[in-house]
Amino acid sequence: MPVVNLDEKLKMFSERWSPKIVARFNGHDVMVVKVLGEFVWHSHPDTDDFFLVLKGNLTIQLRDGDVRLGPGELYVVPRGVEHRPVAEEEVLMLLIEPEGTPNTGDAATAARKEMI
Amino acid sequence: MPVVNLDEKLKMFSERWSPKIVARFNGHDVMVVKVLGEFVWHSHPDTDDFFLVLKGNLTIQLRDGDVRLGPGELYVVPRGVEHRPVAEEEVLMLLIEPEGTPNTGDAATAARKEMI
Repeated sequence: MPVVNLDEKLKMFSERWSPKIVARFNGHDVMVVKVLGEFVWHSHPDTDDFFLVLKGNLTIQLRDGDVRLGPGELYVVPRGVEHRPVAEEEVLMLLIEPEGTPNTGDAATAARKEMI
Repeated sequence: MPVVNLDEKLKMFSERWSPKIVARFNGHDVMVVKVLGEFVWHSHPDTDDFFLVLKGNLTIQLRDGDVRLGPGELYVVPRGVEHRPVAEEEVLMLLIEPEGTPNTGDAATAARKEMI
């Protein structure tokens, strides 16, 4: 596989809340994403949810409090835990989820993930 | 779980080639590590090997050529593929491997991984 330069991958698209697959690892998609605004409350019953902020400041709302992440900070939302990412400015992130995981927790509303 | 600030975690230790666990994700250890010099040739028969360089420049020697990674670049060595990381200057990295994976590919020579 080729080396993945995260900055170069992030320059290849502008749409938000649409994770792009940049590598695969042990049955997981490694993705970059741009987000701004409020996502939907959701959970993933069968997988933890890995967030690493590359640029900007992200709030992950949880039912029992907020988590705030800046660049170089990571957080793993445990499986089954409801959460809602919120970004007051554009945030660039690295995400890791098992292949085929719907980003909204619901296949009907999930973004289609393409490899770039 | 708490937010993981990668810079803060990397300031907590100085030894090299000794990955420190900073989070767990779907049965994997998420680790930070400092490396300098040449590691051993090894492979992991049962897992891919995830490298994300945070600082410095890493060469991953493969039997059919070298891969070079700088900050913000990631690479996944496929399972079973022999490789040797080499760092001419100190390199700081994020690694992800299944819990219990020996970093040398061999339990007898592997570093003990502690959580920080």
